[in-house]
This record gives sequence, structure tokens and C-alpha cells, in this order.
Amino acid sequence: MSYKPSIPKGTRDFSPDVVNKRSMIFNTIRSVYDLYGYQPLETPAMELMETLTGKYGAEGDKLLFKILNSGDFLDGTNRDDLPDITSQKLSPLIAEKGLRYDLTVPFARYVVQHRNEITLPFKRYQIQPVWRADRPQKGRYREFYQCDADVIGSTSLTNELELIQIIDAVFSRLGIKVTIRLNNRKVLMGLAEAVGLGDRFTGFTIALDKLDKVGLEAVINELRALGIHPDKEVLLISLLQSGDKPDQLISKLRELFHGSESGRLGLEEMEKLFSLLDTVTPGNAVEPDITLARGLNYYTGTIIEVVARDLQFGSLCGGGRYDDLTGIFGMPGLSGVGISFGADRIFDVMQELHLFPEGQIDGPKVLFVNFGGADELYSLKALEYLRSHGIPSEMYPEAAKLKKQIAYADARKIPYAVLAGETEREMGTYTIKNMHNSTQQSVTLDQLAELLRK
Amino acid sequence: MSYKPSIPKGTRDFSPDVVNKRSMIFNTIRSVYDLYGYQPLETPAMELMETLTGKYGAEGDKLLFKILNSGDFLDGTNRDDLPDITSQKLSPLIAEKGLRYDLTVPFARYVVQHRNEITLPFKRYQIQPVWRADRPQKGRYREFYQCDADVIGSTSLTNELELIQIIDAVFSRLGIKVTIRLNNRKVLMGLAEAVGLGDRFTGFTIALDKLDKVGLEAVINELRALGIHPDKEVLLISLLQSGDKPDQLISKLRELFHGSESGRLGLEEMEKLFSLLDTVTPGNAVEPDITLARGLNYYTGTIIEVVARDLQFGSLCGGGRYDDLTGIFGMPGLSGVGISFGADRIFDVMQELHLFPEGQIDGPKVLFVNFGGADELYSLKALEYLRSHGIPSEMYPEAAKLKKQIAYADARKIPYAVLAGETEREMGTYTIKNMHNSTQQSVTLDQLAELLRK
Repeated sequence: MSYKPSIPKGTRDFSPDVVNKRSMIFNTIRSVYDLYGYQPLETPAMELMETLTGKYGAEGDKLLFKILNSGDFLDGTNRDDLPDITSQKLSPLIAEKGLRYDLTVPFARYVVQHRNEITLPFKRYQIQPVWRADRPQKGRYREFYQCDADVIGSTSLTNELELIQIIDAVFSRLGIKVTIRLNNRKVLMGLAEAVGLGDRFTGFTIALDKLDKVGLEAVINELRALGIHPDKEVLLISLLQSGDKPDQLISKLRELFHGSESGRLGLEEMEKLFSLLDTVTPGNAVEPDITLARGLNYYTGTIIEVVARDLQFGSLCGGGRYDDLTGIFGMPGLSGVGISFGADRIFDVMQELHLFPEGQIDGPKVLFVNFGGADELYSLKALEYLRSHGIPSEMYPEAAKLKKQIAYADARKIPYAVLAGETEREMGTYTIKNMHNSTQQSVTLDQLAELLRK
Repeated sequence: MSYKPSIPKGTRDFSPDVVNKRSMIFNTIRSVYDLYGYQPLETPAMELMETLTGKYGAEGDKLLFKILNSGDFLDGTNRDDLPDITSQKLSPLIAEKGLRYDLTVPFARYVVQHRNEITLPFKRYQIQPVWRADRPQKGRYREFYQCDADVIGSTSLTNELELIQIIDAVFSRLGIKVTIRLNNRKVLMGLAEAVGLGDRFTGFTIALDKLDKVGLEAVINELRALGIHPDKEVLLISLLQSGDKPDQLISKLRELFHGSESGRLGLEEMEKLFSLLDTVTPGNAVEPDITLARGLNYYTGTIIEVVARDLQFGSLCGGGRYDDLTGIFGMPGLSGVGISFGADRIFDVMQELHLFPEGQIDGPKVLFVNFGGADELYSLKALEYLRSHGIPSEMYPEAAKLKKQIAYADARKIPYAVLAGETEREMGTYTIKNMHNSTQQSVTLDQLAELLRK
């Protein structure tokens, strides 16, 4: 046979072992979201193209997967135009639906569509796959999950606090040590104004954001090219180099922001957030980072980014406050703040750091060897008992050779095998074999359940 | 504002309350599958069209959602042909991927693609959405979940037994009383042969399958038109009308199947399966039903169908044995048996019978009223404590008017509110209000946790 079936590039099959590991991550995120009173939402994989188009910039639009209209999709087109039409022009005529590109736009669409059913503030989470026609590469896929939480309809910084607590709880439960970096778009604006680059804000933040990658000198050179005020270089350098504690940094910035309304506002928010953080006790480090600028066009207040402490792995989670999520759907002025966990990257970090449990996860605890006939019925009764006590268990379906059945248990990483033949049946016992060290013992059904429950 | 965003027809948004109810169903199915040693599998939403096409008949092919190739999709077409090309001809040139139509074909594709990593027998389950460009109507959607379990690589009837036990366990846990109907394709063939319709098998089974809907007389008329042996009518009628117990039915059929090899084989399987069922104790009725013929072209042995006992609602779960799942991908001779739960219909039955818990599911147990300032911090500390003890809880994010905050708790169906102002703060207590009967009491933090844990 030469034909080998395959899947579209950039997509993945998840084998049982991987599904179980990924479920660990999703279930952790889900249960922490629940703990904080966030409510689950699910939206369709497909959205109307009018909902998706124009929300992600020209580059994003190109990455939308479009769904060919059903039936005779050419019916509505002018056939004579077809030889000269561009793909871009034809596309809206034959594809009115697309796959969702993220969970933010469907959320905004949902809020506007269901505005009369929703009580504000609305705290929702959404854990679903999204699709992007990106060039596949290591760690980048065309189908991947996003795990978003947002609260809209409240400007209170306690929302930011809770999202930071959620991040802290999720990574603590998963066993990943992280640093949670905080910034504020208004602080960034204040900084830009303070060094004379208020009118070159985007360039300023792009330069600053690269500090980790290119180093201080390259950043300063870039800022000089933008026209940074020469007197302010030293000041900025001292801010960027210092390992200041939040209150030290804040008092330095306060001095700097005398002339910047935006800076003062941002600083006030940052100060308030850190003082809220003082009342709780996150297990992970929470640090101000005035170079952080992610999603700049979108965020208007607090900016959040999470990186692993023990590995250079990029951002594991990010988010921030935005002022106008639903304006594009005709419902302006709704402020919100949200975060998104990157499940794929978290998975990779956990693999790398060996944070997943050894052996099987969620698999059966025991395989009953099948000796057929009356022995099979004897085992089936025991299985019914174990399962009614919540112990995942199975029997090899046929009376195959013992070696084959044991090999199956090994391949499945099932930790125990039960052998119950004529002898056991007559005595009403079960011989249980530890697959790891091959020790055996004879037990009653109750003892068996007890042993497997551990 | 006149513009109202919407979603593609046949698709649905699931609001938090509905997501929680649906999760109850999915989690129940998932945990029972786990209990029986089935392993979770996930495949991509998109498959290559070559994987999907030709697997669901001509009608099915029309219902496939196709994904427009990315970028300049017209690039590979001959532009001059376009004015005359049919949609059907153009489609494969501009859409090489499609959305999965079911979970069976992706499973078969997975098995063949990963044959070298899989240990047989392979017991897998898969709970994922599928998409069909069907005409939307009540209870029929273009995006819906399937919840499949299959075991391949084993012909043993203990697999059928376990699937029936799984069905029984799932519906018992959900609180739905069901009847599990069993038939066997070979028994159907034996019946057809016994009444002289061996060469009109399809027509015979189609007629029989309608008994529930059209009644006995109409069925007999249809069989007469097909040419049923006149001497055998009475016999068939007695079989169809009887409320025979499995062993009675089986002995009647045994007599009938003297001349039918297929009938004898099927009967042997059915007998074995019912004798296996005698060793376990399903909570729901399991009955033979010789009119059952679902998915006839696909199933080759046991056929399973589940209906609610208290409602006329159609099939809630179905399945059966097939002989050649993977043959179409070049790997013939792999026998399997599987079932599929219809989550949407199960949801509707549970709504109809009021089987979902009253009030919220999985939502926060308590809302802390926000009085701002030092009171807010006092509440935040208590929240941290409750959450660290696994109690879902939240605080209203702003110090809004009390009435507004209480209205929020009501809308969210949160059962308790905590009021903690200056008095409470000074005494180190919390006033907890039962939102249902408006009673209040003053408690310590430990007492609060204790009370909410119930």
C-alpha cells in the first residue's frame, strides 16, 4: 500500500497521551476561571465574513480561513467577469462565512448581539480553537486553542488584580514558576512625552519593546534616530537599567511625569494596582516593566505579560485593558480588561521542565487478563464492581495469549494486571500483578478495589 | 443603531448557563468512557478533501463545508474556462480542505496514518464538533457535537457488552430512563431469507424499520408489494407483535433460521450478547428489537439504538459493529464496534424532563458587596482565603449602589451575598445574606468558608 492519508499542514492529531496532558492544562485554567466567578461562553467556529473582516488589519484579513458557500456558489457571480477577476474580488462573492481568527471578535459580536440578556459587568471565559492561515512553523499552527477571560463594563482596577491572581493561581497549579510583568499604556505615553517623543509614540514603544532582544545600546540608537531629547537619555537609561522595586520606580516616574497628564494618570493606575497587590499574596513575582508594549494599538491602560522564570520561552500569557471592544459593532464606550493563556506554549514548557506526571494520566488502573469462558464472566462481574466504585478498569476483549495481553497492558501503561482463572474463581479471589515490579498477590474483590483506589 | 450582528444560520452561541448544562452531559460521557478504559483522541477540524470525499454518499458530499484555499486561490485555474465551469468542477480546484462531517472518517484516517504507533485493540473516544451544510431546522444544526466511542481490532462480543454498559451508566448518571434496543444485521438477513425476501434485503429492512411510525398493517402491505412469501406473513406478524423476552424470541428465531446460515450466525451472536448481559446488572431495559435497522449499509453485526422511556424523542444514542472501517484508506479487515451519543437531543430531553439542577451550575457561591476603600481590601483578603479553599466566589468590582450590586447577584443566580463594611471590619466578621430568603447572619471567615462549602 503506497497511499498514506495525511492532514492539512499546520494542523495536528492529538493522540490520547497528548489529549490527557492538554486536558490537564485546560481543566486547570477552566477551574481557576470558575473559582473567580468567570462564566463560560462558546461561540460557533464559523462567523459571517462581515463580522471578521477589517478587525485584524490587512495582514490579519489575509490569514482568515474562508468557507465556500454551499451548493452552486458561482450562481450569484457574473460568469463573464470571471476570467479577469482577482481572487480577492471573487472571494466575498463565493464565501460569506469564515473560521474564527480569535476569541475576542466573536466575544464582542456576542456582547452586542445579546446586549439585552447580559448583566454588566460581564465576566466571561472562552476556551476554544481558532484558525489562522499562517505559514506553519515550529510552535505555530493553523489550528490552536485560545483560553481567554475578559470582564467588560467595569473600569475598576480590582478586575486587573483578579486577572493577575488568576494568572498566579494557574501557573502555581501547573507548577510553572513565572514572572508577571505589568505596564500601562498611559505610563508609556508619559515616558514618550518626558523624553520628547510624544509625537513619535509608536516608534518609541517599538524601540523600547525590543530591549530584551537587542540590548540597551541598540534601543538608545533607535531612539536617537527618532529624535529623543539628548538631556533625557541618561534619565531613561537609568530607568531601563534599574532593578527598582515598584515603589521606587513609581516615585522616579512621578518626578518625570510632572508635565504629562497621561503619565500621571497611568502612574496613578499602576500605583493603585500594586497597592491592591499588596493586600494579597501571589506566589509568583509581579514586576513593573516599563518596556512592555504588546498589542499596543489595542490596549489603553494596564498591559500584562507572563514569562517562565526557568526558561527563555516567550510569553505564556498576556493581556490588558482596552476601551472600546464593541465599538466596531456599534456599541461604543464599553471598557474591559482581559487575558489569554497560550496553551501550546504552556504545554511545551511543561514538557521541557518534565512537569507532567510520569506514566499514564487518566487511564485505566487495571487490565483484567481474559481467560475466556467462565473466567471471563467472573472478571466481568469484578469489573462491574470496580467501575461502580469509580475505578477506571478494563478487560482484554478476547482470550488471547497471555503474552499478548500483558504486552497490551505495557503499551497502554496500565499499572496493574489481574489474573483470575479457575483457581481464583473457586476461591473467590483475584491475583493482582504490579506491572512495574512484577510482584503478585492474591486479594479479595474489596481488597482489590482498596488497592486500586490508591 | 440599526446594525445588529448575527451568526451563520444553523449555528449557535452557547450562553454561560447553557455551556454549564452541556458540560454536565459531556463530562458525564467523558468520565464513563474513561472508566471503561477508552482513550481520548482529537483530530483537526479541517481534513483534506480527499479524506472526506466519497465517504458519505453523493448526498453527504454535498453537505461538506469546503475551505477556500488561502492566498490567490484562482492561481491554479485556467481563467478562460471559468465562464463555463460548474461550481462542482471548480470547487476541487479552489478548495483542498473541508470541515469534518463526522468523527468516524477522521478516526479511520487517524488509525491508518498512525498504524505503527497504535496498539490493537484500540479503544478510543472522541468528543468534538462536526459541521454539515444541512438545511437548518428544529433540532438540526450546521455545527453540533458528536460523542463517539469505538473499539477496533477485536471481534469479541464483550466489546458490545461494555458499550451497552457505558450507555447504561451514562443515562443512569444523567437521570434519563432509557430502553436500549439491540438487533443484528445477520438476524435481519435471516429474517428476510425466512420470509422469502433474501434478495430484497434493503427493501425488507426499510419496511421493517418503519414499524414504529406507520404501524403493522402498512409494513405488511409494503412487504407484500416486495413479494413476501404468503405462508410466512403470520409468522412474521407474530414475531413483530410479541412482547417476547430475549430467550423466547431467540428460540422462535432459531426455528425460523433452519435454512439461513446468516440467520444462525446472527442469532448465535445475539444469544451470546444477552447471556453476557445476564452476568451484569444494567439499570435500564435492554431489549431485542428485530425491526431495528439503522445505518444498514454500514453495520455488519450488532445494531444498537437507545430511546428515552418517558418521551417520544427519537434516538439518543446509536451504534453497532462494522467490518471494514479503514478499508477505504487501504487497511482492510479491521473489525470494530462503536456508539455515538447525540448530545443535542440528550440536552433537549433533560430540559423537557427538568433533569438539570435548579439555579446555577458551577457558578460562584457568593458575591462580596463592594463598599470601596478599606472595606474593599478587607473583602479581597477574605476572597483570597475562600478561593484558596476552592470556593468559587467574586466581589462586585466597583463600589456601586447596593441595589445595583444585589441585582447583579440576583441576575447571576449567586446564592449568597456578603456585606462587610466598617462594623464587620472592626469586629473581624462578615455578614452573609441568603439571597433566596433574605436571612442574614454574622460569621467569622472560617464559618463563612464552612457555610459556603455546603
